[in-house]
Amino acid sequence: VTSERDRGLLLGDGLFETVLWDGGRPVRFEAHADRMARGCALLGLPRPLAGDLLGAAEAALDEAGLRASRAAVRLTWSAGEGGRGLDRPGASAPRLLASAAPAPKPEGPARLITAAVRRNEGSPASRVKSLSYIDSVLARAEARAAGADEALMLNNRGEVACAAAANLFWVRDGRLFTPDLACGVLDGITRAAVIAAAERDGVASEVVRAARPVLDGAEALFLTNSLIGVRPVSALDGARFGAHPLVQRLAVAAG
Amino acid sequence: VTSERDRGLLLGDGLFETVLWDGGRPVRFEAHADRMARGCALLGLPRPLAGDLLGAAEAALDEAGLRASRAAVRLTWSAGEGGRGLDRPGASAPRLLASAAPAPKPEGPARLITAAVRRNEGSPASRVKSLSYIDSVLARAEARAAGADEALMLNNRGEVACAAAANLFWVRDGRLFTPDLACGVLDGITRAAVIAAAERDGVASEVVRAARPVLDGAEALFLTNSLIGVRPVSALDGARFGAHPLVQRLAVAAG
Repeated sequence: VTSERDRGLLLGDGLFETVLWDGGRPVRFEAHADRMARGCALLGLPRPLAGDLLGAAEAALDEAGLRASRAAVRLTWSAGEGGRGLDRPGASAPRLLASAAPAPKPEGPARLITAAVRRNEGSPASRVKSLSYIDSVLARAEARAAGADEALMLNNRGEVACAAAANLFWVRDGRLFTPDLACGVLDGITRAAVIAAAERDGVASEVVRAARPVLDGAEALFLTNSLIGVRPVSALDGARFGAHPLVQRLAVAAG
Repeated sequence: VTSERDRGLLLGDGLFETVLWDGGRPVRFEAHADRMARGCALLGLPRPLAGDLLGAAEAALDEAGLRASRAAVRLTWSAGEGGRGLDRPGASAPRLLASAAPAPKPEGPARLITAAVRRNEGSPASRVKSLSYIDSVLARAEARAAGADEALMLNNRGEVACAAAANLFWVRDGRLFTPDLACGVLDGITRAAVIAAAERDGVASEVVRAARPVLDGAEALFLTNSLIGVRPVSALDGARFGAHPLVQRLAVAAG
């Protein structure tokens, strides 16, 4: 149970991570703990101890009976109570919450539409996993209403940013591209793993600021996040994309 | 107490209103209930009944012993539990929370700095009071760190939008201006009251899209929200502003 005075609830003031558990072990747990610590520095909150995050995750898995399953653990680090309106208290006392749920693999490639809702490239909160997620909720709802699985989000400059709950990559002229974090993009853990895997594959990833039409010339698109790994995109705004050997290799290497 | 599965806490998925109670009565209560209903339509949530909002507010005031005081009632309409990740459940079951706190009048005029954090003009959530408020929390923190009271927020186009928790007006060449809602601005209830009061005063308000330098030529600036009414600005980024007769008249007429 959570206090009704919790700033996470009242103001979306806090952070979260979603960690995949597979075969009884967390995937890239340290990277999640590190990212939450960086988010805390950016938002001005005390950081959680990595050991506390792990303990809470394991307790949530045990409670849900999912310790040996493919499961998603949601770790929430709320700013806690106190302060006056927007102003934080003199000393923040964040609260840690954890929950676990089964994490089935996604069913095949994703169909995307471009959402009307934009990412806020002018806020540092767009580059961390803050609790203020309404823009992504609205973008996803747009996609669902259009019969799609996920939304492509542009920023206010019209640049390609990411999906509602995933990073985006594309292949064009045999080269691999993903938007710069300055486009208002979460510093994705699987995004970094894909960039590293591509480099081992001899493919340099190009981190770019590019407007929406760049995707019209793409040979392949794919999404990444900690739960889906690498998920190919089969359609964007009606344009279709087939399987691509580089995407298949990266799915194996970084998924 | 609130569920840890509440989408308001997990995703900032929901809305709120802050209503002033003065002399035992709410100020512009119907306007707050109407705005929350419009916000629900925009976010795709069922709307609360105005009578339920009023009942919850009165219960919170009674519990806090503030029924006869100048008090702020915070009404929170969270999207509730359910759904899978970003996806809402088939039928949302929002939850209503209410709390009351004393609402002293602000002490004198406000000192502002221009925040680095921008408003997201490309999201409809910037025009309603959603629970995803982290950008305003960060902007206010910037202002406090600079020794100021409030933050001026620009949008990603560099246009003047609003303060972290207030609408903004300025007087220039004897005319009254406020940013267009399309700049990423909350449809403020006191903002509308000031526009109406100015019209009765014979002053037409001009709702504009204007870049930051427009304020360098302003004779006066002021903030509006339901708790502060009309609050003059004494400084913006070090530039000073004195008392202005139009602002004083509007503070009386619409405060």
